[in-house]
Amino acid sequence: MTDLTMIRAAAKRMAGHARLTPLLNAPLLDAIAGRRVFVKAECLQLTGSFKFRGAWSAVSGLPPGMGGVIAYSSGNHAQGVALAARRHGLPAVIVMPSDAPQVKIDNTAAYGAEVVLYGRATGDRDAIGATIAADRGLTLIRPYDDAQVIAGQGTTGLEIAVQAAEAGVAGAEVLVCCGGGGLTAGIALALEGTPFRVRPVEPEGFDDTARSLAAGTPLHNAATTGSVCDAILTPTPGQITFPILRRLCGPGLVVSDDQALRAMVLAFAHLRIVLEPGGAVALAAALFLPDLPDTVICTASGGNVDPRVFRDALAKYG
Amino acid sequence: MTDLTMIRAAAKRMAGHARLTPLLNAPLLDAIAGRRVFVKAECLQLTGSFKFRGAWSAVSGLPPGMGGVIAYSSGNHAQGVALAARRHGLPAVIVMPSDAPQVKIDNTAAYGAEVVLYGRATGDRDAIGATIAADRGLTLIRPYDDAQVIAGQGTTGLEIAVQAAEAGVAGAEVLVCCGGGGLTAGIALALEGTPFRVRPVEPEGFDDTARSLAAGTPLHNAATTGSVCDAILTPTPGQITFPILRRLCGPGLVVSDDQALRAMVLAFAHLRIVLEPGGAVALAAALFLPDLPDTVICTASGGNVDPRVFRDALAKYG
Repeated sequence: MTDLTMIRAAAKRMAGHARLTPLLNAPLLDAIAGRRVFVKAECLQLTGSFKFRGAWSAVSGLPPGMGGVIAYSSGNHAQGVALAARRHGLPAVIVMPSDAPQVKIDNTAAYGAEVVLYGRATGDRDAIGATIAADRGLTLIRPYDDAQVIAGQGTTGLEIAVQAAEAGVAGAEVLVCCGGGGLTAGIALALEGTPFRVRPVEPEGFDDTARSLAAGTPLHNAATTGSVCDAILTPTPGQITFPILRRLCGPGLVVSDDQALRAMVLAFAHLRIVLEPGGAVALAAALFLPDLPDTVICTASGGNVDPRVFRDALAKYG
Repeated sequence: MTDLTMIRAAAKRMAGHARLTPLLNAPLLDAIAGRRVFVKAECLQLTGSFKFRGAWSAVSGLPPGMGGVIAYSSGNHAQGVALAARRHGLPAVIVMPSDAPQVKIDNTAAYGAEVVLYGRATGDRDAIGATIAADRGLTLIRPYDDAQVIAGQGTTGLEIAVQAAEAGVAGAEVLVCCGGGGLTAGIALALEGTPFRVRPVEPEGFDDTARSLAAGTPLHNAATTGSVCDAILTPTPGQITFPILRRLCGPGLVVSDDQALRAMVLAFAHLRIVLEPGGAVALAAALFLPDLPDTVICTASGGNVDPRVFRDALAKYG
């Protein structure tokens, strides 16, 4: 089980390999939000999302002599695992949905991984991944239901605690973009017992975590596709992550696709970072939702966005 | 005269007020460039460009009891001075060309400054600035020909030296986006006597610094407008900056507007930072020019870009 000791060990293995991303803020963004907003810019992480942390943690935590790794991912975990494997000299096979953004598919291949595509609505990525893993003797690195992956994502929380203190922030709500809950669980564990309370943020229609937390039991989304926030569309909370979220997190928050796109454009204008819609939902909550405290910290968890999506958002909201 | 002692003093006054910006890199960007490219992401600086450093250095270096400040600027110096003045509790008047990007004019006003517009082709911003300064008892903060401003910009060079060492880079060419030469001179002074050689980068048609360095004497550009790189269109090298550049810098480099826009799009895709065209010329040189060494560091000096310019570039090169 992931705990603070495991997160600290992951941070140690990661030092000099992953990037310590900045905690950004901007006076004009605060003015729009009506509160102080700090943004943990994981879009600046290697491979463009926090997923590199978990991937590095998992790959660097493998026993010596492993034959390679396999992962299934809509794109960001794919790129993280591909680069982490290459830097460890290991082959990687990545199983990706065929409707993943082309930029994510292309980049995963460019990091040297073998990409296998499947249909998101009809295929079972767990089954496909397990079969290839068995056939080729590869170790499966799950995107969130993996103790070492959660530990890696949790290093984000260790950095937030240090950087918030440096910025003079003694406590805050920490809003985290939430798909399967790996980043949310990792950060919640890293910040357990501190004056920082973690709250997951999801897109409308894919708020399985918010509803599951409210119900006290894992619930499913009705659909598997249909939001622009492709990076965080998971059917239901993770088996390992959900109990952590239930124990440590505040209520889930939900934003519309439009709010995510507007947050993406405001991050462009005032923070000069590139976010993908799914990586902008926490910022969207900080900017547009009522009943939040005066100071919030949000993860900007990824920036691998198709240029056309970004362009359309700039045309609409820029 | 600006020297290392003055730059270190500026860094001390700036600590906790300006941002220590990250030195970014990306494997897929290196593959495109055919060399290792590190990017000092000053677009992530407060107000979206390195100019906040010089502004903070100058305002924080004023004697007590000053009545306020005035600056003339195409936009980035304007925003830097406006925010630095506000955070020191001083009024600021900013004289801006009427063709400056609207986003820069709007943001300068949003930081609390009084904006005065003039025609770039017909007006003399020095004369306008001097008149208002005299009338209202304001201290003029020049954009580059000011020893404290150069010292402030030089803090970027101190950080580059530390961050390059952390990245295992023992020496490199440091390509700097160059308008009046404040950033270039500051970084060159900060890195004097190290294995890092500074080279200014300018847009085609506005390569006054490159030509002046080659000629050994200050030359003028034929035009004052006509490049998308609005942030770095100065008529001629600065009187204080040019002798520093002549003493310390390697030959100037020149890129086309198209190369700057392509670099802007590649920074979007692979570094997930937002650059303005003028802030992308050094990266453009690193990506597209021949005869550069295996490792280069470039400043990404600003990210205050009009959404339409960014959108058009994404449509063309994304």
